[in-house]
Amino acid sequence: MKAWFNGALCQADAIIVSAADRGLLLGDGLFETILARNRKPLRLDRHLARLVDGAGVIGLAIPPVDLAGAVMETLAANDLVDASLRLTVTRGVGPRGVLPPSPCCPTMLITAAPLAPPPSPAFCIVARTTRRNEHSPLSSIKSLNYLDGILARQEAQRAGADDAILLNTAGFVAEATAANLFVVRNGEILTPPVREGALPGIARETSLSIDDLMAADVLFMSGSLSLRAIARLNDRLLPGAGEEVIAELASRLAIPSVFHP
Amino acid sequence: MKAWFNGALCQADAIIVSAADRGLLLGDGLFETILARNRKPLRLDRHLARLVDGAGVIGLAIPPVDLAGAVMETLAANDLVDASLRLTVTRGVGPRGVLPPSPCCPTMLITAAPLAPPPSPAFCIVARTTRRNEHSPLSSIKSLNYLDGILARQEAQRAGADDAILLNTAGFVAEATAANLFVVRNGEILTPPVREGALPGIARETSLSIDDLMAADVLFMSGSLSLRAIARLNDRLLPGAGEEVIAELASRLAIPSVFHP
Repeated sequence: MKAWFNGALCQADAIIVSAADRGLLLGDGLFETILARNRKPLRLDRHLARLVDGAGVIGLAIPPVDLAGAVMETLAANDLVDASLRLTVTRGVGPRGVLPPSPCCPTMLITAAPLAPPPSPAFCIVARTTRRNEHSPLSSIKSLNYLDGILARQEAQRAGADDAILLNTAGFVAEATAANLFVVRNGEILTPPVREGALPGIARETSLSIDDLMAADVLFMSGSLSLRAIARLNDRLLPGAGEEVIAELASRLAIPSVFHP
Repeated sequence: MKAWFNGALCQADAIIVSAADRGLLLGDGLFETILARNRKPLRLDRHLARLVDGAGVIGLAIPPVDLAGAVMETLAANDLVDASLRLTVTRGVGPRGVLPPSPCCPTMLITAAPLAPPPSPAFCIVARTTRRNEHSPLSSIKSLNYLDGILARQEAQRAGADDAILLNTAGFVAEATAANLFVVRNGEILTPPVREGALPGIARETSLSIDDLMAADVLFMSGSLSLRAIARLNDRLLPGAGEEVIAELASRLAIPSVFHP
């Protein structure tokens, strides 16, 4: 595969970064996962806007590069019809210490992978090992600090499940490890309050408890790449969360009904 | 400078890692900062034990390497009398996705730097931008997910301060961005509950509020490298937190009275 690295296309598996990169040493950076269908990246403007928002939160000055063009270039170079792209921006190399250097020279990377086939509806658990911190600005940006998600996904794996749903520190539902969560109840689509509003105007933002999940008609999750039904949550089977229901939701939400972490 | 990288000594600024390293892409890894005085790393056993504990929490199998020997080798190769060493272990290269590959091939890195001279007592603020998540196991290990600390340190910088004290989500005092926090009140040393117990048996663990900090006789912070007095917290000057008091505390605690982030 080809990847775009700091301005140029290269062989993806040959790309190397300095061991003094703050992305590596401190998780100091951001990323976006972008779906491409029929050789076109979807919602690219919104992904780039969210990246810029996140950069504002952590005070990272993204170099004035045509990132949209770079995403297209990466997609074209790999001759992929449907793909999953990942755009990563770290703060770059810095000296020892917590405080970023000024100015900094960010590391920028865009990789592409073929899109996996649609998986079956998911078995999820509610994570007990860790919680999302709604008191941190990191909970509303896509940062490289992904260990809480990794811990929750490992817990799911130990339980034989596909994914885990994270609660926040107040005990309300936050999200799955790599996707937003949606509840269908009496025909209405509900989602926990998320600052970015993954699907504004379509789903109603409201605080959701575990009981709300257990009382749902349908549960589904949606990452940047798309939509997946939840067929089982802990011990509860959700008979309504079949492929047809999800296909209908996907069409209402105008996103493909395939989920790829 | 020389550094130790995956089993061999090399030129530090030439060390490179794959852009597919999970440390870089997901902050998936751990680190320790180790003080060396008179060509000897201090408390090395405890640092390595804490690394192993952290690896247990995130399910990372550290390869059976003589890390203590590697730390000594790195120190000797740089001919440093007093040094700050950093040991970093990431989960290594993995395919796309949140779940770690099994088995994984960790990236291991040990760098050394000369020890900075003792700074003056610190001006600290209580961070308002973010909080520590005491509901996550990450709050008790030294992971590569350092962005909350970076956000708090940036806030301190904007206020003209040296460091920030983080509260947890319940509003109690957690720690400084790269150091544990200690309160001296009526001759007793108090510290917030920390699972690792940085100084077990010397400081009494107890929940501390901002009011407790404001009512303290002396405030100081201690990282792996050592001890620094706090001369001012927000608008409160702490006249008792002078160099002599800290020197006495340092001698009681058997750590050098120099702080290096």
